[in-house]
Amino acid sequence: MNMSDIDNLRREVAGLIIVRASGYSNDNQRCYPQWELSNLKLQNLLGKGIGGIILLGGSTIDIKHRCNTLQKWANRPLLLCADLEEGVGQRFDGATWLMPPLTLGRLYAKSPEKAIKLAERYGRCTGDQARRCGINWVLAPVCDVNNNSANPVINLRAWGEDSQTVSALVSAFQRGLASEGVLSCAKHFPGHGNTDVDSHLDLPEIQQEMSQLEEIELKPFQAAIDAGVDSIMTAHLNLPKIDPINPSTFSKEVVTQILRRKLAFKGLVVTDALVMKSIREKFEPGEAAVKAFAAGVDLILMPVSAEKAIDAITDALLSGRIPMTRLKEALGRRRESLNKVEDAKPNFVKTHCLKSEQQFERLEDRELAEEIIQSSIEFHHLKVIKKTDLGINLIFSDEILSSRFISNKSPAILLPKLTGYRQMITHLHGISPWQDDLEDPLCLHRLGDGPVIVQIFLRGNPFAGSQYRKKPWKAAIKQLQRSKRLSGLFIYGCPYLWEELVDLLEPSVPAAYSPGQMPEAQDFLLREFFKSQNEFSNNVPERVYEFTD
Amino acid sequence: MNMSDIDNLRREVAGLIIVRASGYSNDNQRCYPQWELSNLKLQNLLGKGIGGIILLGGSTIDIKHRCNTLQKWANRPLLLCADLEEGVGQRFDGATWLMPPLTLGRLYAKSPEKAIKLAERYGRCTGDQARRCGINWVLAPVCDVNNNSANPVINLRAWGEDSQTVSALVSAFQRGLASEGVLSCAKHFPGHGNTDVDSHLDLPEIQQEMSQLEEIELKPFQAAIDAGVDSIMTAHLNLPKIDPINPSTFSKEVVTQILRRKLAFKGLVVTDALVMKSIREKFEPGEAAVKAFAAGVDLILMPVSAEKAIDAITDALLSGRIPMTRLKEALGRRRESLNKVEDAKPNFVKTHCLKSEQQFERLEDRELAEEIIQSSIEFHHLKVIKKTDLGINLIFSDEILSSRFISNKSPAILLPKLTGYRQMITHLHGISPWQDDLEDPLCLHRLGDGPVIVQIFLRGNPFAGSQYRKKPWKAAIKQLQRSKRLSGLFIYGCPYLWEELVDLLEPSVPAAYSPGQMPEAQDFLLREFFKSQNEFSNNVPERVYEFTD
Repeated sequence: MNMSDIDNLRREVAGLIIVRASGYSNDNQRCYPQWELSNLKLQNLLGKGIGGIILLGGSTIDIKHRCNTLQKWANRPLLLCADLEEGVGQRFDGATWLMPPLTLGRLYAKSPEKAIKLAERYGRCTGDQARRCGINWVLAPVCDVNNNSANPVINLRAWGEDSQTVSALVSAFQRGLASEGVLSCAKHFPGHGNTDVDSHLDLPEIQQEMSQLEEIELKPFQAAIDAGVDSIMTAHLNLPKIDPINPSTFSKEVVTQILRRKLAFKGLVVTDALVMKSIREKFEPGEAAVKAFAAGVDLILMPVSAEKAIDAITDALLSGRIPMTRLKEALGRRRESLNKVEDAKPNFVKTHCLKSEQQFERLEDRELAEEIIQSSIEFHHLKVIKKTDLGINLIFSDEILSSRFISNKSPAILLPKLTGYRQMITHLHGISPWQDDLEDPLCLHRLGDGPVIVQIFLRGNPFAGSQYRKKPWKAAIKQLQRSKRLSGLFIYGCPYLWEELVDLLEPSVPAAYSPGQMPEAQDFLLREFFKSQNEFSNNVPERVYEFTD
Repeated sequence: MNMSDIDNLRREVAGLIIVRASGYSNDNQRCYPQWELSNLKLQNLLGKGIGGIILLGGSTIDIKHRCNTLQKWANRPLLLCADLEEGVGQRFDGATWLMPPLTLGRLYAKSPEKAIKLAERYGRCTGDQARRCGINWVLAPVCDVNNNSANPVINLRAWGEDSQTVSALVSAFQRGLASEGVLSCAKHFPGHGNTDVDSHLDLPEIQQEMSQLEEIELKPFQAAIDAGVDSIMTAHLNLPKIDPINPSTFSKEVVTQILRRKLAFKGLVVTDALVMKSIREKFEPGEAAVKAFAAGVDLILMPVSAEKAIDAITDALLSGRIPMTRLKEALGRRRESLNKVEDAKPNFVKTHCLKSEQQFERLEDRELAEEIIQSSIEFHHLKVIKKTDLGINLIFSDEILSSRFISNKSPAILLPKLTGYRQMITHLHGISPWQDDLEDPLCLHRLGDGPVIVQIFLRGNPFAGSQYRKKPWKAAIKQLQRSKRLSGLFIYGCPYLWEELVDLLEPSVPAAYSPGQMPEAQDFLLREFFKSQNEFSNNVPERVYEFTD
């Protein structure tokens, strides 16, 4: 091979690499500058033939503009993807943020047909909005079965806690998404549900035998494949009974033997982000990309260094360590996927409408979001909470800086305030409300006097680990009840915490649970408890959504 | 007059009204839904002939898109304005956020020529970026003389503490801004500096005689007029010695006699927002607009109800309470102002450049911002703070929800963390670090053991009142020094607080002050104190700004 052949090869290899960028157009707006490439770097890599970009952050206007620009810079079709597991609004402001998938998993037990219909609409809403933003590859559905309630990272992101539920709902989601002309991605193969370790922080070990995987974990992936899922993302897991040496992302057994041969998957296989600590700290950047590609993966997501990944894979191809056929098949699958997106485009050319262009979220989107909220919030003892002069609205949230669900306009703050409960927001980086006392874990004199409503915002969050989950919540609730100060308990997020705490409540204590943390869910949950006050209509905007179409 | 004449009149009157909207395009992104009109409402009012819109919030991409849309909906030139007193980045993410004006006021005492040059560049930077966003009317410069250090609302927004400094700098700012083809606005007439009351909450009373006003407050306005300022905003103040009945916004004496006749101002006069509590609670919505218009004001900013303002002014014109000539002259001035903007446009048509389009902030903008930062940060005892295992980074900020300067990527959190100081963020809505003890006002056992660095983010903020300013800061610093725990003191914002506290410091305590609170200022201030650690280069992105042009 001469130099120009090698350059061409390097350029083809670059097509396999997906790098990360901010959804904001300005470098100075990046929320994670250590991971999100600068514009100069992006232009440089796009010039080298990089294959796709994963995007996070910004409004629907920002992201649409951003996707347009990236496509222009590349001057050829790109894979533009985002982790849109809970609707486009989960990542991009102004779009529809839907209740987490587990909400429908729980509904499925009671009303499977309704859950399936909602899951299909969930897919359609996500696909339609993604496409209108310029995203052509949705990194969803999560196909993991959340059969470990201590799972710190999957939790509400899963569509269910058993494989039958997950299979039924991810198939429905896939049908909806596919009808909107964007690509999908089933993750995290071969199943990330049964662990209590966060793979963002360490490599979880899953002890299942192949027969157990076949029994549970693989079924939703098979269902997604049968429903036509376009791509599958590998998990960073150790499965010693399946491959005693390599984690799943690097395992030929997992990727080629099980996924390609056994499950007969024909679409794109992509790694989970290679910058994740579990991989980054144990494998050299170039070698990590080579190992994944050699195992049968097609696309490399967020390598520590795109250049090193390109160089290392190119070298492995030139040396014969990886056969050239691997490159051909990976590029072929990528091309087919992009063609699929292009072919679908004519179906979605709509007449230009200035009015509806301005309101990104459509009436049907809002209706879907509300329907899921209404079908999932659980009320324990629904009664109006009396007005007081010195109530404390004790809010727990692991993160409050840049929070998307707690702000000065959040119903969780506004509604209790009108009833006399002033907010006291506690978080992991403030003065602790806790003390070293197993019986009385809350340091009550730090809060001051008066009745207390407790609002806990807690869910399995990547990176956060389980620090917050392990707080002595049970003892705290008992303590507040003993001292006759608990006026209400409201939990947003983790269903397992709710189930633990609701049983402790005295029958007279108002309480409720919402799987979602978004303001609309807070509003629906709290409004009934804080409704009879007179000032209401004057001070809090009603949940009015105005639609122009 | 027949009905269609009256409709035409009403439509002309609507041209005098400026309403408020979010810079975000989606209704569900509004940060202040009680004040920011919905898209449906905006389209309706634009159809009725509303004259302009004041905008807040969003990225540079959002706001540009928003301005385009509003212009399209109106189908005629609109006044599109924003409170851009500290650069466009003060209001719109991704643009340049400059140090507050008082920074240059302080510099003027040492180096008047340098301060004047920077003020002119400040105006150019603001004007250029505003225009590129679609904003054609910048509500700056503040012409108030901040001669009352307890002023809760002007403070750092003023260009100086004496009228000569303010006059020199606002003239320079005006020259710079005008060269960029956008309109300016001198505020808050006849001078809002000498009060310790926030007019957002109550109507301040200013006891000055006319001769005193002429001596101090009016001079910067005269200077701005001489420099060609396009509009002047009235303040909501009681000046019993000037007009014993009406607040300045409603005072014919202030607006017509002093501003029009004495100062011979020919441009647009606009009210400050009529929704401000001091006006809203004392005057009926329609009547407030009529009073302002009758006094000689041309444009009505943020009336409580646009419809009521239009109806009431129309009625006043029809009844003869206000002469029709008032309407003619106001509309004439509005038209002239818009013509000025249109006439300047050809000067700014640039060749389309995809690269530079993506990086909104230009190299010269960044250089200006850095130059002002470097010329204004004060170091007290500059030495590297030693690494520790259990330091506390005690951050005080009146607001942390949705803060634009404190986030997980803020240097104020990241840099101390690398030296072993973990953040403890206190705010008005969390567990209090204070106790009832004049000598020892900080409740130290709530913080835990270890050395403490104190970072205070405090400035005069509209609405916040002076609640935070009045904390026992002096005693707290003394207390930490007595207990040998103070490792550093860093203040961002109010210069008067810095001056009070720096004198108390033992000579060995590192300390510094920045007038600005933005991340770039934190970085410049802290980097020298936390620099010698090894992990540095790996963990904190250097202050690299990459420019493509």
